[in-house]
Amino acid sequence: MGVAELSSPATASTKTASRLHYSSQLSLSSTRLYNNLRRSLRPISRARHFNISCSVNQVQAPVAVPREESKSKSDCYGVFCLTYDLKAEDETKSWKKLVNVAVSGAAGMISNHLLFKLASGEVLGPDQPIALKLLGSERSLQALEGVAMELEDSLFPLLREVKIGIDPYEVFEDAEWALLIGAKPRGPGMERAGLLDINGQIFAEQGKALNAVASRNVKVIVVGNPCNTNALICLKNAPNIPAKNFHALTRLDENRAKCQLALKAGVFYDKVSNMTIWGNHSTTQVPDFLNARINGLPVKEVIKDHKWLEEEFTEKVQKRGGVLIQKWGRSSAASTAVSIVDAMKSLVIPTPEGDWFSTGVYTNGNPYGIAEDLVFSMPCRSKGDGDYELVKDVIFDDYLRKRIAKTEAELLAEKRCVAHLTGEGIAYCDIKEDTMLPGEM
Amino acid sequence: MGVAELSSPATASTKTASRLHYSSQLSLSSTRLYNNLRRSLRPISRARHFNISCSVNQVQAPVAVPREESKSKSDCYGVFCLTYDLKAEDETKSWKKLVNVAVSGAAGMISNHLLFKLASGEVLGPDQPIALKLLGSERSLQALEGVAMELEDSLFPLLREVKIGIDPYEVFEDAEWALLIGAKPRGPGMERAGLLDINGQIFAEQGKALNAVASRNVKVIVVGNPCNTNALICLKNAPNIPAKNFHALTRLDENRAKCQLALKAGVFYDKVSNMTIWGNHSTTQVPDFLNARINGLPVKEVIKDHKWLEEEFTEKVQKRGGVLIQKWGRSSAASTAVSIVDAMKSLVIPTPEGDWFSTGVYTNGNPYGIAEDLVFSMPCRSKGDGDYELVKDVIFDDYLRKRIAKTEAELLAEKRCVAHLTGEGIAYCDIKEDTMLPGEM
Repeated sequence: MGVAELSSPATASTKTASRLHYSSQLSLSSTRLYNNLRRSLRPISRARHFNISCSVNQVQAPVAVPREESKSKSDCYGVFCLTYDLKAEDETKSWKKLVNVAVSGAAGMISNHLLFKLASGEVLGPDQPIALKLLGSERSLQALEGVAMELEDSLFPLLREVKIGIDPYEVFEDAEWALLIGAKPRGPGMERAGLLDINGQIFAEQGKALNAVASRNVKVIVVGNPCNTNALICLKNAPNIPAKNFHALTRLDENRAKCQLALKAGVFYDKVSNMTIWGNHSTTQVPDFLNARINGLPVKEVIKDHKWLEEEFTEKVQKRGGVLIQKWGRSSAASTAVSIVDAMKSLVIPTPEGDWFSTGVYTNGNPYGIAEDLVFSMPCRSKGDGDYELVKDVIFDDYLRKRIAKTEAELLAEKRCVAHLTGEGIAYCDIKEDTMLPGEM
Repeated sequence: MGVAELSSPATASTKTASRLHYSSQLSLSSTRLYNNLRRSLRPISRARHFNISCSVNQVQAPVAVPREESKSKSDCYGVFCLTYDLKAEDETKSWKKLVNVAVSGAAGMISNHLLFKLASGEVLGPDQPIALKLLGSERSLQALEGVAMELEDSLFPLLREVKIGIDPYEVFEDAEWALLIGAKPRGPGMERAGLLDINGQIFAEQGKALNAVASRNVKVIVVGNPCNTNALICLKNAPNIPAKNFHALTRLDENRAKCQLALKAGVFYDKVSNMTIWGNHSTTQVPDFLNARINGLPVKEVIKDHKWLEEEFTEKVQKRGGVLIQKWGRSSAASTAVSIVDAMKSLVIPTPEGDWFSTGVYTNGNPYGIAEDLVFSMPCRSKGDGDYELVKDVIFDDYLRKRIAKTEAELLAEKRCVAHLTGEGIAYCDIKEDTMLPGEM
């Protein structure tokens, strides 16, 4: 990257040109270690709001405003600025091609767990070299350097590139995974509508950036809250990336639900399978004990206390984060990072026969009668190719239907609140209840 | 464990009896989930100081004071209170025997990274089921519950037991690994002598506890500072465990030294080998660029700037933690945890041909002429059986000899400061300089 200045990719069609431009990075010599970093401190001048006018199912490519002289860059860090040919060396010649993993909120605590898992090879395997592209804010840029230093000092053989930056148009370049963790916390007195708007802005911009510069088959996992609606905003702003590729993380809810059923049934958690979280990552979410199984049997056959299932189980799952904050004084960064790893592994490792996993995905074409054009957590299976299919053989009863309808209604309401960010016109926000999960802010 | 009360193991010879007593744990039923925990809040009444009178090389078994009615216990947590027969199930019958890993300072940030690595199977392998025994203080017991909750919610298949407690005599029971991370930070105005004393007390007690209840071949890695002298105190108080089994962690220093040499030479860090840290984990430590290699060549042949090697390299390694605190605002918990994993792996995986690793170990019988009866970081190789041997083919020059002598003198001075804790009589403390590494407190 050196002293070359980049102009912003003006639209998605400039991707090729942008790529050519960026290729100069590959010749970076090792003598410029650290120095490159300074240049990325310059402010972004790109306008953050775009006019999008489109219908729900035919989203046009966003009209990007050219950056005037934007000089902010994502830059390689320290020892990760080196170039090398993995195919030229005995130890690395059998490795797969380098994979680009972009992470937003990279200076936060969840990332502080996640990045080291990614770099160690625990997630994508021992022959998968990794490039980590870390997105922060101007405020967190120093902290990002600290994270990069700790990654250097960890000597992970598979970690071959680390870049840090504050501009998603640069950090997301050629990303094959985008793990969108960063979001603004709710300020004092802020309503949920305000939170939807402030975070929606971020995810609209990041969607546009992904659309412009990421791999055409990038897998996006949205963790920052409200994650379902953020994922919806993101996919709406990235019309050139399959909507199917966007996920909202409900895996921690699934893991917690399995653990609570195991505790109640007196079995180890590996005996609980087929756990679906339906709907929103909020207090309207539905941990599904009708379809879940314990030792291969329906939960209701194993746990006879159906009153507990109907009246206490869901709350136990949802209060977990709040209880943790009380006890530990911090939010669940470590187990959230584990659940992101689980979500990634579920897409790259074939799902065990007869089982499934939950993830918030786009509802178009779903077989459950859930409203289309939402991001809704549903049961999925994967062949391990990065893709997934919705599970067909699930059953419903009135109780389950009614609760799914409630979380569906909430997501429809959230969608109305962010119409200005999804290209559907003027937002109308009538959300009254606070459905943020305890311990999440 | 249930309602049974334990008396303290009076000496190492009561171990068998103690084991029999503890065996009642194995029949814990799953219905007492969570409830057991409350009982561990009762105070410890055991006296903390022991009179030890012995010479350096003939340490007597410590005279333990029987606990009067001590009711504090380490207790299983939640879903980890279940019993199961791993040999009875298809998925687990080929697994190794459960290994007990005890961790002190378990509610701290280093542990928060380390425990999840241990539980994931990243360290000891995918067929090694693990029991984590977490040692905290009364103050941190709630936080320990939080850690245990996050471990539950992570659904690690290999993690089969989690116990939490505040009494090392219970938490270290049958431990095959003891990772001693917890230590008191230096208070305002506290001299290094004061720190040596306050932490020495902790490690004397933990040594006695290991001696009384841990596996006879437990591997102990001391991380809490001042770690070399803490490790010495610990091994002196555990005469029935081979002194060879005690390590002081200098692996993060080794990793940082490799990274700094790689940066200077413009090579990736995997090209740096044979890196020794000699001596104390303090500013007198000696990162050895005479014996280290880059791409198989002596460092001095690759890095021609010998002035940099002699005058800047060591400081760069040592200042790393301080720089990190400046940038990131926190200490290096993540990379410290990675280095603990590296240290463990170095003992259970054969050392690559021609290479070695650094660890602070007991000096008796060392071939380098270093004073005996210290814990001193030196170059080691392992066959992967948990044991190690000191590397013989290292070279010395005047510069290296002189610096090794300085760190050796420091460790001898530290040892004089803790004579009252190692059974060598009355302490005499004449340490003037503050040699704590930046960013470590």
